[in-house]
Amino acid sequence: MKTVHVHTPSHSYPIYIGAGLLGDFSLFAPHIGKKAAIITNETIAPLYLQQLSDLLTQNGVHVFHIILRDGEQFKNHESLNQIYDALLAHHADRKTTLIALGGGVIGDTVGFAAATYQRGVPFIQVPTTLLSQVDSSVGGKTAINHPLGKNMIGAFYQPKLVVADLNTLHSLPAREFSAGMAEVIKYALLGDVDFLAWLEQHINKIMQCDDELLAQVVAHCCQMKADIVAEDETEQGIRAHLNLGHTFGHAIEAQMGYGNWLHGEAVAAGTVLACRLSEQLGSLNADDTARVAQLFRQANLPDTPPKFALEQWLAHMSHDKKVENGKMRFITLARLGAAQISEITDMSLLEKTLNKFTV
Amino acid sequence: MKTVHVHTPSHSYPIYIGAGLLGDFSLFAPHIGKKAAIITNETIAPLYLQQLSDLLTQNGVHVFHIILRDGEQFKNHESLNQIYDALLAHHADRKTTLIALGGGVIGDTVGFAAATYQRGVPFIQVPTTLLSQVDSSVGGKTAINHPLGKNMIGAFYQPKLVVADLNTLHSLPAREFSAGMAEVIKYALLGDVDFLAWLEQHINKIMQCDDELLAQVVAHCCQMKADIVAEDETEQGIRAHLNLGHTFGHAIEAQMGYGNWLHGEAVAAGTVLACRLSEQLGSLNADDTARVAQLFRQANLPDTPPKFALEQWLAHMSHDKKVENGKMRFITLARLGAAQISEITDMSLLEKTLNKFTV
Repeated sequence: MKTVHVHTPSHSYPIYIGAGLLGDFSLFAPHIGKKAAIITNETIAPLYLQQLSDLLTQNGVHVFHIILRDGEQFKNHESLNQIYDALLAHHADRKTTLIALGGGVIGDTVGFAAATYQRGVPFIQVPTTLLSQVDSSVGGKTAINHPLGKNMIGAFYQPKLVVADLNTLHSLPAREFSAGMAEVIKYALLGDVDFLAWLEQHINKIMQCDDELLAQVVAHCCQMKADIVAEDETEQGIRAHLNLGHTFGHAIEAQMGYGNWLHGEAVAAGTVLACRLSEQLGSLNADDTARVAQLFRQANLPDTPPKFALEQWLAHMSHDKKVENGKMRFITLARLGAAQISEITDMSLLEKTLNKFTV
Repeated sequence: MKTVHVHTPSHSYPIYIGAGLLGDFSLFAPHIGKKAAIITNETIAPLYLQQLSDLLTQNGVHVFHIILRDGEQFKNHESLNQIYDALLAHHADRKTTLIALGGGVIGDTVGFAAATYQRGVPFIQVPTTLLSQVDSSVGGKTAINHPLGKNMIGAFYQPKLVVADLNTLHSLPAREFSAGMAEVIKYALLGDVDFLAWLEQHINKIMQCDDELLAQVVAHCCQMKADIVAEDETEQGIRAHLNLGHTFGHAIEAQMGYGNWLHGEAVAAGTVLACRLSEQLGSLNADDTARVAQLFRQANLPDTPPKFALEQWLAHMSHDKKVENGKMRFITLARLGAAQISEITDMSLLEKTLNKFTV
C-alpha cells in the first residue's frame, strides 16, 4: 500500500492506494462514526456496495445506502436533493459520515452534499475510477452542474480520507480507463517532463492495466496534486494549472450535452487545443503539439474536438468560471512540462486556434 | 460610528454600526470589486435599493439587482436558484461581490449563494432589521430551509464586512423590531446578567427606538457574538449556546408553517420553554423563569408557545440538527447569565416541560 498525505490550511488527510483496500476496516476506523451513509450509483452498487457495507456493518457501524442514477447528466440538483431527502429521512446528524463510492460524479456530488448538509458533515472518498483516483477525489473541490454551466455550484470541502482500491479499476470499461489517462497525461504536461517521457515509454503496458505500473501512476499523480493543493487550496493561483485543457473541454461537454463525451475525452481534445493556443502565443511548436496528440491517441483518446460554430465555442467558454472581469483566462503551456495562465483579449488568437473545428 | 472586529480562523472582518452608513462609500471601497450584485427582497427594495445602488454606481462599480420574495417561507431552493440563474445570466465571475441587503432571510440565503456560487465569491452583509444586525449577519452561518427542517442546507462562510445602518431600523414594523429584541434578550441570558439588568432598566426607551441606546444594544450584542465566534467558528462547542431557545423555537416555526410565527417570536416562547426545562433540571427556579417571561412581554413578545401534540413537538425537535447520535441536545441555563449544553435522554423531562402546551 502507498500513502500520500494532503495538507491544506483547513485540514490534512491521507490517501491510501493499493489493491484490496476495500476489505481493510482499519483504514476507515479512525475516521468514521456510529452512523454512515454509503452513496453510490446504480452501476457501482452491484459491484462494491455489499462488500463495503458488510465491512462497516460487521464492525458496528449503522449503515444506510443512497443509490443515484449514473452519469454526468445526473450531477445536478435532483441528485443532490435525493441525498438531502434520504439523509433527513434517516435522521442523519452532524456526526453521520457520508461515503462517496464511485467515480468523479459521485465524489463531486456527495462531497457537495457533505459540505452543505447541516453546514458540513464528515465524508470519505472511495474512488472507483482511474479519473477519480488520480484527480477528482483529491483536493476538496466539490460541485454540481447548472443548466448554464458545469461545476457552477460547489464548495471547497476536504474529505477525512481517500481510499483508492486499485482492484476496482479491473471492472472499469476501457473507455472510462482511457478517460482517466487524459488527466494522467495532463499532470505530466503541466509539471513534469520526465513523467511525460516515462508515460510514453510505458503507455502500452499501462493501457493493459499492469498493477505495478498503475500503483506508480496513481501515487505519482496524487502526490503532484497534493503538492499543488497544499500550496493553493482555493485556486487563487497555481491550482488553476490543473485546469489545463478544461476550458475548451467544458465547452465540448456543454455543446455535446453532458455525458455524451466523457470528461476525460473532452479534456484530451481540449488539451490539444490548449497546445494549439500555446502555439499561437509562440510558446510551443507544432512538433510539441503532435507529440501530445500522439500520446492521447495511444491512450485511445480523441485528439480533435467536434466541430461547431465559433460563436458557440465562445459562448460556452465565457460561461466557464475561468473568466475574470471579462478577460478570458486559459491555462497554456510555456513548454512541455510547465503550465502558465494566459489572459486572452485578442479574440483572433482563439479564432485561429479553433478555425479547423468550427462550422 | 462603532466598529466591532470579528476574528475567525478562516477570516477576519469588521462590523460597522451607526446611523447613515449606507451613504458612506469609503466603508465598502476596500472590499468591493468592479462588479456587484445587490440582492434584496420586494419589501426592502423600494426603501433602500436605489440609495445603495446609486452609491456604488457613482463610484464606478457595475451593479445589477436581484429581488427575491419576502418571508421565511421563501428561504428555500427556489430563491437560491433565482440567485444562481441571475448571476449566470449576468456572467458573474469569481470576483463579483454579492451584497445582501435585508434581514436574516436575505443574509442567510445570499450568504449560502455566495458560499456555493463557483465554490465561493465575496459577499457583504447590509442587515436592515434589528434581528439581523444583532445576530444573523455576524458569524458566517448561512443556510436555506428544507421542507423537513429549518436551516438544514447551509455552510459556514464569512462576509467581507457587515454594514449595520441604524437608520434602516426606523422603517422596521413594530412586530419585527420586537422579534429582534428576542435575540437581544437571549444574549443577556446566556452570557451577561449585568446586561440583563441594564435591559430591564431601559426596555421602555429601547422599545421606543432611542438611537443612543440602540447603538449600545447592537454593538454589545455584536461584540458578544464576535467573541463567541472567534472561539468556535464552526459550532463544535460554545457557539451552540447561541441556540438557546432555538430547538423549541424551530419546532414552533415548523409546526405553524414557516413565516407565520416570526423567528424571534418563536425564539422568545422557545427560550421560556428552555427556562422551564432548566427548572426540570434543577438549575433555575420559577422566579427566574417569571423574570425572563416578563422581559419578553415588555418587548411585546409571546412568552408561551401554541399548543400541539407532544408527538409533533418531538418529531420536529428530532429533525433539528442539535440531535447527535440519537440523544436530544438542548441549550439550557445553569443560572440567569450562563448557558450550558444538556443532553436529554429522559423524555419525561420534556413531557413535563411541554405538558401545558400539548393537546
